[in-house]
Amino acid sequence: MSVSDALAADLRRILPYERAVLTSDEDLIAYGFDAAWFEARALVVVMPRSVQEVAAIHRLAERAGIAITPRGMGSGLSGGAVPSQRAILVNLTRMNRILEIDRINSVAVVESGVITADLQSAVEAQGLFYPPDPSSLRQSAIGGNIAENAGGARCLKYGVTSDYVMALQVVLPDGTIIRTGGKTVKNVTGYDLRSLFTGAEGTLGTITEATLRLLPKPKFARTALARFGSIESAAACVTAVMTSGVMPAAIELLDRLTLECVNDIQPGAFGEICDAVLIFSVDGNYEAGVNGDMEIVAAIAKEHDALQVFVAADDAQAGEVWNARRAVSPALARRRPNKLSEDICVPRSAVAQIIVRIREIAAKYGLEIPVFGHAGDGNLHPNILCDRRDADEVERVRQAGREIFESAVVLGGTLSGEHGIGLLKKQFMELDLGSDTLALMRRIKDAIDPQNIMNPGKIFPEPGGADAFHLGAQTSK
Amino acid sequence: MSVSDALAADLRRILPYERAVLTSDEDLIAYGFDAAWFEARALVVVMPRSVQEVAAIHRLAERAGIAITPRGMGSGLSGGAVPSQRAILVNLTRMNRILEIDRINSVAVVESGVITADLQSAVEAQGLFYPPDPSSLRQSAIGGNIAENAGGARCLKYGVTSDYVMALQVVLPDGTIIRTGGKTVKNVTGYDLRSLFTGAEGTLGTITEATLRLLPKPKFARTALARFGSIESAAACVTAVMTSGVMPAAIELLDRLTLECVNDIQPGAFGEICDAVLIFSVDGNYEAGVNGDMEIVAAIAKEHDALQVFVAADDAQAGEVWNARRAVSPALARRRPNKLSEDICVPRSAVAQIIVRIREIAAKYGLEIPVFGHAGDGNLHPNILCDRRDADEVERVRQAGREIFESAVVLGGTLSGEHGIGLLKKQFMELDLGSDTLALMRRIKDAIDPQNIMNPGKIFPEPGGADAFHLGAQTSK
Repeated sequence: MSVSDALAADLRRILPYERAVLTSDEDLIAYGFDAAWFEARALVVVMPRSVQEVAAIHRLAERAGIAITPRGMGSGLSGGAVPSQRAILVNLTRMNRILEIDRINSVAVVESGVITADLQSAVEAQGLFYPPDPSSLRQSAIGGNIAENAGGARCLKYGVTSDYVMALQVVLPDGTIIRTGGKTVKNVTGYDLRSLFTGAEGTLGTITEATLRLLPKPKFARTALARFGSIESAAACVTAVMTSGVMPAAIELLDRLTLECVNDIQPGAFGEICDAVLIFSVDGNYEAGVNGDMEIVAAIAKEHDALQVFVAADDAQAGEVWNARRAVSPALARRRPNKLSEDICVPRSAVAQIIVRIREIAAKYGLEIPVFGHAGDGNLHPNILCDRRDADEVERVRQAGREIFESAVVLGGTLSGEHGIGLLKKQFMELDLGSDTLALMRRIKDAIDPQNIMNPGKIFPEPGGADAFHLGAQTSK
Repeated sequence: MSVSDALAADLRRILPYERAVLTSDEDLIAYGFDAAWFEARALVVVMPRSVQEVAAIHRLAERAGIAITPRGMGSGLSGGAVPSQRAILVNLTRMNRILEIDRINSVAVVESGVITADLQSAVEAQGLFYPPDPSSLRQSAIGGNIAENAGGARCLKYGVTSDYVMALQVVLPDGTIIRTGGKTVKNVTGYDLRSLFTGAEGTLGTITEATLRLLPKPKFARTALARFGSIESAAACVTAVMTSGVMPAAIELLDRLTLECVNDIQPGAFGEICDAVLIFSVDGNYEAGVNGDMEIVAAIAKEHDALQVFVAADDAQAGEVWNARRAVSPALARRRPNKLSEDICVPRSAVAQIIVRIREIAAKYGLEIPVFGHAGDGNLHPNILCDRRDADEVERVRQAGREIFESAVVLGGTLSGEHGIGLLKKQFMELDLGSDTLALMRRIKDAIDPQNIMNPGKIFPEPGGADAFHLGAQTSK
């Protein structure tokens, strides 16, 4: 009996259900990737249904010295849910119950496997609102959102996932089940463990349950689209809106190449091709206020030489604009065989500079790098288009990626605004954080997970270890 | 030469300025307390002016194995800034420069010693807004606000201090200077160290500089006061408002005994004495919207049997209401020689229950316990009035305090919403968190501060150690 067979037998004693312990090639392949570059095979995939089962899996893993990679729906963009080598992949999608929607306290209690959009529908049916809206929300699980601290368009006004995590149930590496936080918005009893586990990408424990803060759902929203002849005027428009006193729910930016890609699959979706499009949304409880905000935004866009400002007349027109926005990722995916989706965040004053810089980098390496993202908070997604079968091109992608990260950091920005580090950016951590801050993070990791069982190989660069771009190339699909 | 003399001489080499190293009795006494129960004497008080000096002090302390207690303005309410035994008290009030107000990125960069109200005035002069508003804001330093994760009335709508901390400069125990975060709102590059240091009460390092997020200042605000015949109807009004779709900036509650205390020094400030008063404020950029919100709030108050609803007609009338609210703490302080200010936070559905329970506890122990606080987020300040020269009464205070904490935890609440744990509540940490979560916090503390140099004796209960109430009694002023 191989190591894997013995392990699977032990795991079947913990999970004596059908299809709860998977070891076939097709299953290991299916659960071997996320939405980034990487693919790897776990020793075994397990499908627990309760926190007690997760804890038992942890205890088994710790005794055997085998790694654990927790996974939600695998829609992440940095490799966080790609199984570590020789790991037990803990798939949490069977723990998908909404345990409670507490209207009086504006709180939802959910298991990690709940789909983000399902949570949103359930709370909106009660007049409540869970704001974080990663583009993957129809696929992604809330546990993955928490592990990566997912963002989204309306995080400009409403904040990211961590702003909504009031409490967590976490299984520590050794199987201990802890709770941190509760149904109170304010809580300063000891260290903020909720924020520590949120965004830790499964490297400190397995998140099994979350208590999430909800808001009243805003009653009115309006959307506008503005076309610009230059990225500089679009960026100047963003900072002018953000210093006008209006706080839009979202300001999305699409650059020229992004618009060309969308045009290929939805001709005319954003009108004639131009250098940049901005999409604004504003919301609130008073129609007059929402309209007033939108008038200010539209006037600012015109002052900043917008070629055209289109204010959606109703929800149907607004829906068309957002559908076109959602076509961006599929459109980029069609242009070339592969795309490397990046996630830099710069101070919003630097949005024009970083896009100009990315255009220079694209030209230097002979690559196409469309840029889109959340311009209001400086969180941009340069997508490096390529063909991964072309080793020369992959090398140019690698170098361009490094230059983009370096440029973001020089401009006061950071490697990741909402996708996490995972495998994709770990070799750039020191560039961003410096060695002392990185060393401090590693001390925390070592203190909580001394055996390095939890999702090893993620976030932290390995001394002399693989460059994630090369690793990606080696293990590409 | 005594240990203190040798230490002072070493420190004077780091800080060769006048009154930068204090060792006289009057100075050690003056810097020996905060606004809670406790008083202790440091070995020496130092007044650094730069992060390099702070780092040098840390290195000296680590070599000598001497503790450090960082201190802002000493306005804290849990003993966090009271010097640990045989500690160097690092007073950060000379590091009080506002280094930058970046209007384009809506960010302020400040040293730790900046007074919260000074920061607010400076940013409001530029149309910006720093929302956290602890009652002590005219005295408290921003570094202390961060160390304790201070709240305030308008945190209901706007969130607490940690929601505004974008980046920190921190001196680690060994003198290493790190930066974490930056001028980007979104940042998921590694663990969230900003949130870990925020609220850590100086036990993980000395915070020397902060980058703070600012908002556009809302253009309009309105205030109302509602008087209720029973605490139950006031509490039901709070939950009805919070589920109405309106998000008030603040909902403050004052119970009968609080009103009686205020009446003693400002007769008629809140009209005739009743069982509870609520103060509401709403704000926004549109006068019609703000008025609309206030109409909804006033209607809900009337539906919940308010005896009277007074909507301030203008800023002057609103100012009078808030001045009366600010008279609460001085009024309670005049009633008896001492008050123990508590800071429980319960789910807002439990506000009436906990106040009724506190009244039972007060009756059981023959104590007066007025309750006021931030009812919208369930964060209440029961103040146990007493005379600390009366050992029997202090014992009853101790028992009543424990019962209040136990009741809060049973109702799903926590020990502290915004004051921190410090010395005052450390013996109740396990009651709130459970032993496993507390042990995890201690592992993090040990990993970052292996010599336990940073503010020892705070947050963590000492096995077999002093009960803070007794310690308070022993070292009382």
